[in-house]
Amino acid sequence: MNDLDRYDTVRAVHWHGDHLRLLDQRRLPFETVFVDCRSAADVAQAIRDLVVRGAPAIGIAAAWGVVLAAQQAPELLAEAITQLRASRPTAVNLMWALERMQRAIDAGADAGRLADEARAIQDEDLAANRHMGQLGAALLSGGGVLTHCNTGSLATAGFGTALGVIRAGVAGGKISKVYAGETRPWLQGARLTMWELVQDGIPAQLIADSAAAYLMRSGAVQWVIVGADRIAANGDTANKIGTYQLAIAAKHHGVKFMVVAPSSTVDMATPDGAGIEIELRDPAELLGVAGTRTVVEGANAWNPVFDVTPASLIDAIVTERGVIERPNRKAMTALFGA
Amino acid sequence: MNDLDRYDTVRAVHWHGDHLRLLDQRRLPFETVFVDCRSAADVAQAIRDLVVRGAPAIGIAAAWGVVLAAQQAPELLAEAITQLRASRPTAVNLMWALERMQRAIDAGADAGRLADEARAIQDEDLAANRHMGQLGAALLSGGGVLTHCNTGSLATAGFGTALGVIRAGVAGGKISKVYAGETRPWLQGARLTMWELVQDGIPAQLIADSAAAYLMRSGAVQWVIVGADRIAANGDTANKIGTYQLAIAAKHHGVKFMVVAPSSTVDMATPDGAGIEIELRDPAELLGVAGTRTVVEGANAWNPVFDVTPASLIDAIVTERGVIERPNRKAMTALFGA
Repeated sequence: MNDLDRYDTVRAVHWHGDHLRLLDQRRLPFETVFVDCRSAADVAQAIRDLVVRGAPAIGIAAAWGVVLAAQQAPELLAEAITQLRASRPTAVNLMWALERMQRAIDAGADAGRLADEARAIQDEDLAANRHMGQLGAALLSGGGVLTHCNTGSLATAGFGTALGVIRAGVAGGKISKVYAGETRPWLQGARLTMWELVQDGIPAQLIADSAAAYLMRSGAVQWVIVGADRIAANGDTANKIGTYQLAIAAKHHGVKFMVVAPSSTVDMATPDGAGIEIELRDPAELLGVAGTRTVVEGANAWNPVFDVTPASLIDAIVTERGVIERPNRKAMTALFGA
Repeated sequence: MNDLDRYDTVRAVHWHGDHLRLLDQRRLPFETVFVDCRSAADVAQAIRDLVVRGAPAIGIAAAWGVVLAAQQAPELLAEAITQLRASRPTAVNLMWALERMQRAIDAGADAGRLADEARAIQDEDLAANRHMGQLGAALLSGGGVLTHCNTGSLATAGFGTALGVIRAGVAGGKISKVYAGETRPWLQGARLTMWELVQDGIPAQLIADSAAAYLMRSGAVQWVIVGADRIAANGDTANKIGTYQLAIAAKHHGVKFMVVAPSSTVDMATPDGAGIEIELRDPAELLGVAGTRTVVEGANAWNPVFDVTPASLIDAIVTERGVIERPNRKAMTALFGA
């Protein structure tokens, strides 16, 4: 077991031949419960309900949803894909995975060949994360880092995107301490990232999302490292709500800002962030916390769950194809094509 | 009943002759429960435990704590004052109120005269808030505003500081909509500010603290309006954690930033923000929400509950003595003395 394996023990998406078993991320960190999806509709529901979340993990789960449809009702494949595509709007990995499965279908793949394709998507994501970990960690030069939401093994096929860079940075002695924002409203940072960090024995502290700027002012962090749900052709990046606020605060303090995502997150068909649909979720997610209502009856809330960070606030985009520093359309096109 | 009275129905601090009755703000918005304090020690405990919070309300409660000590054990007055002073470190209104009571003691006041002094502190705070409401609202020119934490009737003798300006602005047709940040970890925005706003029928939406920058980018808010726990001699302002982050985001978007606080919040003896002690509270406040543990065992958290916003990020400081635009030491000294 090498140093990196030590930091990579959790898997959220499990294929069992005729059903997909998902680690229910709503119940973590205190309950390890699985949800079995036996149809594409089950998978779409699990994505909508956040049983599985994280842009790469959503894409992988959707690919397996296509396999289930192919096994059960090949004549309804198109309908299943439409349903999966509609399950969440912001993460482009979902569309990317479904298009890749569609290409296999168009090439005449049967359920068995589609399962090979879904397995490849999953395996390639893990390999991409390991590679990005090395590329991203090479940018670091010691000190503390701040991350947001969960971008770890739970959000991907394994190892993680931003959290993969953090794992590699810790293993390589490039990170002395990790701060994690709790990430309201779903508390992915508090519930999931802290769980992964504690399991790995990585020195970490949780902070309120609103404490990030004060933390930066204290000098405790040199980099903010986050994942992405969609990266537009000019480098504008959609990610969990709060990412944009962190990028503004980082720029204000001279803290560097890194986005880590596989190339499946890049959407060259969307020119810039203005073209990215931002998911608005139920206000009820803000009117209570962890199942307890906290806000008076009659109150209303505005609950966008993603925002867009303009490329001008990003120091580096790390993908498995390479690193783009100070991203812009030209550099993006050079790496990802038009 | 005029328009302003319509927006001012709650009182958090009630004197009953031989005990102080505090509205337990930890139980709002769903339970209206009172805590009776029968000694200065009871009052200090209530301040520490956040039964009463909000810089002006803390100062008022502490003044009544001195009255209780004077009634019960005048020989232990000095000890009671020391205990009250230590109950929370950041809000200077607490020190201010205790110093004012001390001056009355030094002038020979008995328990009855001290009660008159505490009553004056409470009444003057309400009057200051009404006046600041008019001064602050005069700076507005329509549109939406964002506020943070709770600065309303609950945090003061009544009407509120920042929320007082908002009440006056709504009454005067200068504000079309209010956004309130939920204010982790104690959710004062979600639990208390939304409760006051819904009671008053003011159009309002709750947001995650991390959604503020994205909200500003949408153009929905023209001013951020917040209270203060201590304002240093150069205008640097300590307030609830997250205020500094909002000020950075506001500057980035050209949104104006207003601090509203009575002159009892001004601390001319502290030259700048570096001299303000920032209270660090129990990490446990971040490891759970509303009584439910959300973070894995073994996790750690960093929980500063205030931060300092430099004067350079503040467009206006509104006090009952007048408004300082683009605050600096010279303008502060002109209004508050050396």
